[in-house]
Amino acid sequence: MLLCDIGNTSYHFLEKDNDYKKNVKSFNPSSIKEKIYYISVNIKVNILLKDLENWIDLAPFVDKKNYYETMGMDRIFACEAIQNGVIIDAGSAITVDIVKGGIFQGGFIYAGIKAMNQTYKNISPALDYSFNFNINLNTLPKNSQDALSYGYLKTLYNEVISYNQNIYLTGGDAKKFKHIFPEATLYNPLIFDGMKKVLREKKLEFML
Amino acid sequence: MLLCDIGNTSYHFLEKDNDYKKNVKSFNPSSIKEKIYYISVNIKVNILLKDLENWIDLAPFVDKKNYYETMGMDRIFACEAIQNGVIIDAGSAITVDIVKGGIFQGGFIYAGIKAMNQTYKNISPALDYSFNFNINLNTLPKNSQDALSYGYLKTLYNEVISYNQNIYLTGGDAKKFKHIFPEATLYNPLIFDGMKKVLREKKLEFML
Repeated sequence: MLLCDIGNTSYHFLEKDNDYKKNVKSFNPSSIKEKIYYISVNIKVNILLKDLENWIDLAPFVDKKNYYETMGMDRIFACEAIQNGVIIDAGSAITVDIVKGGIFQGGFIYAGIKAMNQTYKNISPALDYSFNFNINLNTLPKNSQDALSYGYLKTLYNEVISYNQNIYLTGGDAKKFKHIFPEATLYNPLIFDGMKKVLREKKLEFML
Repeated sequence: MLLCDIGNTSYHFLEKDNDYKKNVKSFNPSSIKEKIYYISVNIKVNILLKDLENWIDLAPFVDKKNYYETMGMDRIFACEAIQNGVIIDAGSAITVDIVKGGIFQGGFIYAGIKAMNQTYKNISPALDYSFNFNINLNTLPKNSQDALSYGYLKTLYNEVISYNQNIYLTGGDAKKFKHIFPEATLYNPLIFDGMKKVLREKKLEFML
């Protein structure tokens, strides 16, 4: 079974137990000839895939009544994979979604690490620091790197911890956030699990 | 007494009770011939001002032992102005600083509204929303605009409220943040107050 989760920067493939990524700028989806189930939040890639018959969008197969219309498909399929918990998907954007009893409760969007570094660099060369993921979040910062890191990480931490739920970390930067949320479960195949669940429920597997 | 607080985007002047701004890109500081006391966080402007004798940098006159070396002068002078409280200076960057008994306790940096809007727009055109400052921060979002607004505003709110201190809002976007912190005091002359305090303490006024 070939699956693909398409984000703003990468095609993320799963082929049996192997996952790999291709850059959205350089990868040509028509180079794949076999049947592939995908979800996508990438508007440009969606246009490319529309005419490729072997690329099958899983979006129409998920029950959307608990979600909202413009919610990214990656978030919806990650939520489908769990019954209870907070999902932090740390990619070019970071999404934080809360699921209780298998039902999406709401969620929010935060900027990804790379985007935030660029943001501060653009505001002023004096703010061109990388984030310190080993920062002590219990002490108010007294240096520039920690002042930026605290503003980015502690604020997110407070909100996530306030739900008092199990935390699932997924996405390209998940490992970095594990320093901030040591109690979290690092689990990258979350979106693929959601895709497999929908494939099973909608009995699409026979098409493979 | 002519005072000027120079940020990343503006020269902010105070002449008696009138304050006005000039864009850093277009304003020529040598067009001012009278004596002017300034602070600056703008590296490019600092170079321009170095050779102008009537522009007097107040930075060397403040006692820096309670601050840190790379801390922006705008933050230091705002802290000088109060005895107790949290200062939110909402400009192109947002700084949050905590003062107790006249002593700086630490603080952090957050991205400004304009910078964050641009950040999300750069990540994906699907995230090109303005922030909703009338959002209900007690409810988990279920639409894109609120998901972005909550991620930007609720996370900041949690941290600031946790100090349980009086909140002072200053800077160009202070009014917008008043919606999020209704209990805060909106007070734009905070940095100028700090500058006046240092002028008084260091007995520089006779030079005017």
